[in-house]
Amino acid sequence: MTIAAPPVPHVPDAATIRRAHAAIARHGVVRETPLWKLPGASLGVNCAEVWLKLEHLQAGGSFKARGMLNRLLAGPLSPAGVVVASGGNAGIATAVAARALGTRCEVFVPSVSSPAKQERLRALGAHVVVAGDAYADALAACLARQQETGALLTHAYDQPEVVAGAGTLALEIEVQGGVPDSVLVSVGGGGLIGGVASWFAGRSRVIALEPGLAPTLHAALASGGPVDVSVGGVASDSLGARRIGDIAWQVAQRHVAQSLLLADDAIRAAQHWLWRELRLAVEPAAALPLAALQAGAYVPRGDERVCLIVCGANVDPSSLA
Amino acid sequence: MTIAAPPVPHVPDAATIRRAHAAIARHGVVRETPLWKLPGASLGVNCAEVWLKLEHLQAGGSFKARGMLNRLLAGPLSPAGVVVASGGNAGIATAVAARALGTRCEVFVPSVSSPAKQERLRALGAHVVVAGDAYADALAACLARQQETGALLTHAYDQPEVVAGAGTLALEIEVQGGVPDSVLVSVGGGGLIGGVASWFAGRSRVIALEPGLAPTLHAALASGGPVDVSVGGVASDSLGARRIGDIAWQVAQRHVAQSLLLADDAIRAAQHWLWRELRLAVEPAAALPLAALQAGAYVPRGDERVCLIVCGANVDPSSLA
Repeated sequence: MTIAAPPVPHVPDAATIRRAHAAIARHGVVRETPLWKLPGASLGVNCAEVWLKLEHLQAGGSFKARGMLNRLLAGPLSPAGVVVASGGNAGIATAVAARALGTRCEVFVPSVSSPAKQERLRALGAHVVVAGDAYADALAACLARQQETGALLTHAYDQPEVVAGAGTLALEIEVQGGVPDSVLVSVGGGGLIGGVASWFAGRSRVIALEPGLAPTLHAALASGGPVDVSVGGVASDSLGARRIGDIAWQVAQRHVAQSLLLADDAIRAAQHWLWRELRLAVEPAAALPLAALQAGAYVPRGDERVCLIVCGANVDPSSLA
Repeated sequence: MTIAAPPVPHVPDAATIRRAHAAIARHGVVRETPLWKLPGASLGVNCAEVWLKLEHLQAGGSFKARGMLNRLLAGPLSPAGVVVASGGNAGIATAVAARALGTRCEVFVPSVSSPAKQERLRALGAHVVVAGDAYADALAACLARQQETGALLTHAYDQPEVVAGAGTLALEIEVQGGVPDSVLVSVGGGGLIGGVASWFAGRSRVIALEPGLAPTLHAALASGGPVDVSVGGVASDSLGARRIGDIAWQVAQRHVAQSLLLADDAIRAAQHWLWRELRLAVEPAAALPLAALQAGAYVPRGDERVCLIVCGANVDPSSLA
C-alpha cells in the first residue's frame, strides 16, 4: 500500500495551473505564444529536435504577464488597485494586467530607473512613483502605500498565483507540441521554473540555468536552503533577484533535475546568435537555454527533444547591431 | 459540358508546389516557420483572427530561401555552381541554398552595396564580386560570367522554380492553420504573391500590397500588362523591382482579388508597431500587411480570419530603437 505524500503548501498542482490557464485566457491580453520546432542541427546541437517556446513575444515582452494577470484575478481588488516595486519586467507585466482589467496601477521605481522604462510604464497606463535612490527605497515606499490604501501587492516571483500563472506556459507547450524530453529554464527568483517544474512534475527533465554571477538556486542547493547571494553580470537586469523564492525552492527540490551555471560570455554569444541566425531579438536572460547547449554545459542525447524557453524580449535592439 | 482551361505556362499548380515542398524539406536548411494566431483586437483590428506567418524567421531572413533552394535543386548544377546579381535578400538566399548543397556561389554586387551586406554574403560562403557602380553593371557582369562558365543563374522572382518555392509557404500555412479567409502579401517583383496565389488559387482572397512609391503590379493592372515603374521609398531595399515578373503577372490576373497601395508613413508606423507591441523585428517590406489593416486600406469583415505574411527580417535593429 502506498501512502500519498501530503501536498506541499503553495506548490501549484496541475488542477491549479489548468484553472489559471482558463482564467487568464478569458481576458484576451495574454497571448498563446508560438512553439517553434527545429532540427537540433540547425542550431548546431547534436539532438533530434530543439523546441523554442517564443515567450518573448508575450504581452509586455516576457512570461510575467501570465503570473501577474493571474494574481490580479485572484484579488481582492479595491479601487486602490495594485502596487508593485519594479522598473523591469514585473512592473511592465503588472501594468499590462492592470490595464486589461481596468484597474489602477502604481509602479514604484528608484531614481536610477531609466527614463525610457518609466515612459514605457506610463504608456501602459501606470502611475510611476520615483522613490529613493535604490531598489530597497522603492520597495519600502511600495509597501507603505499598500498598508495605507489596501491596494493589492504583486511580487515578482514568490506568490502562489504568480507561480501558477507561469505554469500555464508549460501547459501550453504540452498542448502545442507534447511533452519534451527536457526543458531548459532560466532562473532568477524562480517564478518561471517554479511554474514549469510544477506542471511537468517529473514528466520532463527540467534543467535550471543561472548566470554564474547570479546563482540563487545553485547557492540554495549548495547551502540546503535559500540564501542571499550577490548578483551581477549581463543578465542581472531580469535575473537579478538576490535569493530564490520559497515556492520555487519547494518545487525545485522535488522536480528540478539539474542546476547549471553559465558564464556571461556564453550568454552574450547565444543572445547574438539568436539574432544573427534566427532573427529573434531577446534579452540576455532568454539566451541561457541556448547558451547551455552551445557551450556544452548541457549535453542532450542524440534522440532528445529539448525545449528552450525564450523568456523575454526587453532588449535595446541597437545592442544587437 | 465544361471544357477545362489549358494550363498557363509557368504558373505553378498545386502538384508542382507539393513537389517543391517535399524537395526542399529534405535538405534541412529551409525552416518551417511559425504561424501565430492572435485575436484581431490584440492588433487593434476589428476581425476575428489575425494569423501572422513569421516567415522573417526563415533561413537567410526572408522567404526567398524557399525559391532559391528549389531553383538549385532543379539544376543542372555544374562545378561552376550558381551566380546571382543581388546584394539583398535574393543574394543571401542564393548563398544559403548553395551552402546547403555544397555548391559554389558567386554573388555580383555594385560598389554601392554596403560592406556589412558583402560581409554577410562572405560569411555564408559566397564569393562576392564587386562589378561597377550600379545594379545594371553587376547584372551585366553576372550574365557574362554565366555565359562564360555555364553556372546556374538564379533570378530574384521570375523563374518557375522560384515562384513554386515561394508557394510552399502558402502550403505550409494551410497545413499549420487551415485556409484563411484572406491573405495579405507584399509585392515587389511578385515572386511571393505568384507562389501564394497559385497555391490558394481562389480558395482564399489574396490581396496584393505595394508601396505607393514602388507600384509594379498596380501599374501593370492599370496598363493591361507589365510596365517599368520608378521605385523608391522606405521598402525599396526589398520591394525595389522595376517591373512585375511575367509569371506573377499571369498568376495575378487569375488569382489576386485586389491590389492596394500604401503610404510610406503607414508602412513605417506598422514596422515600429510590430517591434514595440509584438517584439517582431522586421524590415519595412514585411510591415505592409499590418499597415493595410491599421491604416484602413483593407477592411476585413468582423468574422474574418486574415493571414499576414511577415516576409523578411533584414533590418538594422538599431533602426527600431
